[in-house]
Amino acid sequence: MSEGVAQVFTVTRRLRFADCDPAGIAFYPRLLEHLNGVVEDWCADALDYPFREMHLVRGRGMPTVALSIRFASPAQLGDRISWHLRVGRLGRSSLTLSVSAVGPDGQDILQAEPTLVHTDFSKEQPKSEPFPDTVRERIEPFLIT
Amino acid sequence: MSEGVAQVFTVTRRLRFADCDPAGIAFYPRLLEHLNGVVEDWCADALDYPFREMHLVRGRGMPTVALSIRFASPAQLGDRISWHLRVGRLGRSSLTLSVSAVGPDGQDILQAEPTLVHTDFSKEQPKSEPFPDTVRERIEPFLIT
Amino acid sequence: MSEGVAQVFTVTRRLRFADCDPAGIAFYPRLLEHLNGVVEDWCADALDYPFREMHLVRGRGMPTVALSIRFASPAQLGDRISWHLRVGRLGRSSLTLSVSAVGPDGQDILQAEPTLVHTDFSKEQPKSEPFPDTVRERIEPFLIT
Amino acid sequence: MSEGVAQVFTVTRRLRFADCDPAGIAFYPRLLEHLNGVVEDWCADALDYPFREMHLVRGRGMPTVALSIRFASPAQLGDRISWHLRVGRLGRSSLTLSVSAVGPDGQDILQAEPTLVHTDFSKEQPKSEPFPDTVRERIEPFLIT
Repeated sequence: MSEGVAQVFTVTRRLRFADCDPAGIAFYPRLLEHLNGVVEDWCADALDYPFREMHLVRGRGMPTVALSIRFASPAQLGDRISWHLRVGRLGRSSLTLSVSAVGPDGQDILQAEPTLVHTDFSKEQPKSEPFPDTVRERIEPFLIT
Repeated sequence: MSEGVAQVFTVTRRLRFADCDPAGIAFYPRLLEHLNGVVEDWCADALDYPFREMHLVRGRGMPTVALSIRFASPAQLGDRISWHLRVGRLGRSSLTLSVSAVGPDGQDILQAEPTLVHTDFSKEQPKSEPFPDTVRERIEPFLIT
Repeated sequence: MSEGVAQVFTVTRRLRFADCDPAGIAFYPRLLEHLNGVVEDWCADALDYPFREMHLVRGRGMPTVALSIRFASPAQLGDRISWHLRVGRLGRSSLTLSVSAVGPDGQDILQAEPTLVHTDFSKEQPKSEPFPDTVRERIEPFLIT
Repeated sequence: MSEGVAQVFTVTRRLRFADCDPAGIAFYPRLLEHLNGVVEDWCADALDYPFREMHLVRGRGMPTVALSIRFASPAQLGDRISWHLRVGRLGRSSLTLSVSAVGPDGQDILQAEPTLVHTDFSKEQPKSEPFPDTVRERIEPFLIT
């Protein structure tokens, strides 16, 4: 029941030629670019905190400091992959996401838990910084309780 | 008037964090990945000849053998770029595309003329091969006359 | 003492403009491309089993099926990063690597444990396959005991 | 004879798995990343004007504003590609390079003429700016006369 209460952010992205390797399947660092793009879409579309504003206007960012990922089955050229994002842990300035990717026939592609830290890049030394309150409020519905 | 008769294939893609460089603008090889993605979408959605079938089933491909490109203004992180594709020249086994990309405020981002050759990769030595008739028929409406 | 007996494979690669993001630091999916490149160099230079032969001649591959990674400090544009690879676990057809990356001032950049599975891609369904004996013999000196 | 007097900047880079597509050959936008990397090495190693200093310290850059390229033969996974860079035209704030890439058996891979503009990114509106004198002096020996 507990996981059912979390809101899920979902986007679908096509796996492109540029993402595939000589074995004809997804090259895994490119799947991580997709993962990063899903986080980017979530920040822009669900949190109203787009990377452009975060990085170029406010001098902030959300670098990934840790990542655990399991690849279940290969994604194929042309596949439409559905990405599902929830929040597994929410701290003051960091969070751990729980992201799954599902292929066109419902097959499990990957399960990832990236940890991101909200960071102030505007000083000489980058430094973690609590999420802005309005951003935090928009994150909370996605938290798995 | 002559250009008005050609059909235009249009797609819009967001410029992502992964596409931008330390100057905060599009890294040009990544814009060429977008260009390649536009050609990929055109093959799949307009020509009914998706890269997956072309490459993995039929052992064919359409490598780019020449490219001329002019970058007019920098694309910014988060921009929704509109890509417009037409065909400038259509030979038996090759074609030259005319592609323009336009930014969110209507600004000219780039103008590109890639030349692609339909190629048989199934033999030891790759070899150019005429476009299949059904594919050729679907290309023709996009030809600038 | 135990770790001291393992051979270490080391390569140094410069962090390029293409690898950096609008925050001016390494974009993490690109660090994973470097990680993959280090594995590629190890296979070619230490195991005498280059990806070209593995993939294009023998129809085999070593896809990454799991990855755990911790990013300690950001890598900067132009940094020469030293990568150190050992083997943490060696099974019949899979292994888990232990890879660390160190920056030009000796700072810890990342620590990664990718798990790879030697796979036969020549059939309809990819299938795990024991490492060839000669390859296995060349892997063993890198095993942390 | 005239071309013989220009100094040539040469680097060799291996074509990696990450650079290759499902056809098993170089994906052309990735060859352009290599091209950009060759320019990056030239700036760092021959002009003593590394991208890091240019971009992160001085707020300058050298974006590519036009590119003409011809791909002669496909580059293969694992190939060591030799890149040869000279300067075809040198203006006050822009230059056009002449770059050729040669494969391991001496085959012509590509010939590219990128045009780059030295640009001041430190103001609201990026603006072209003459090359610093010391940089210009180091460029001149590479100019084809």
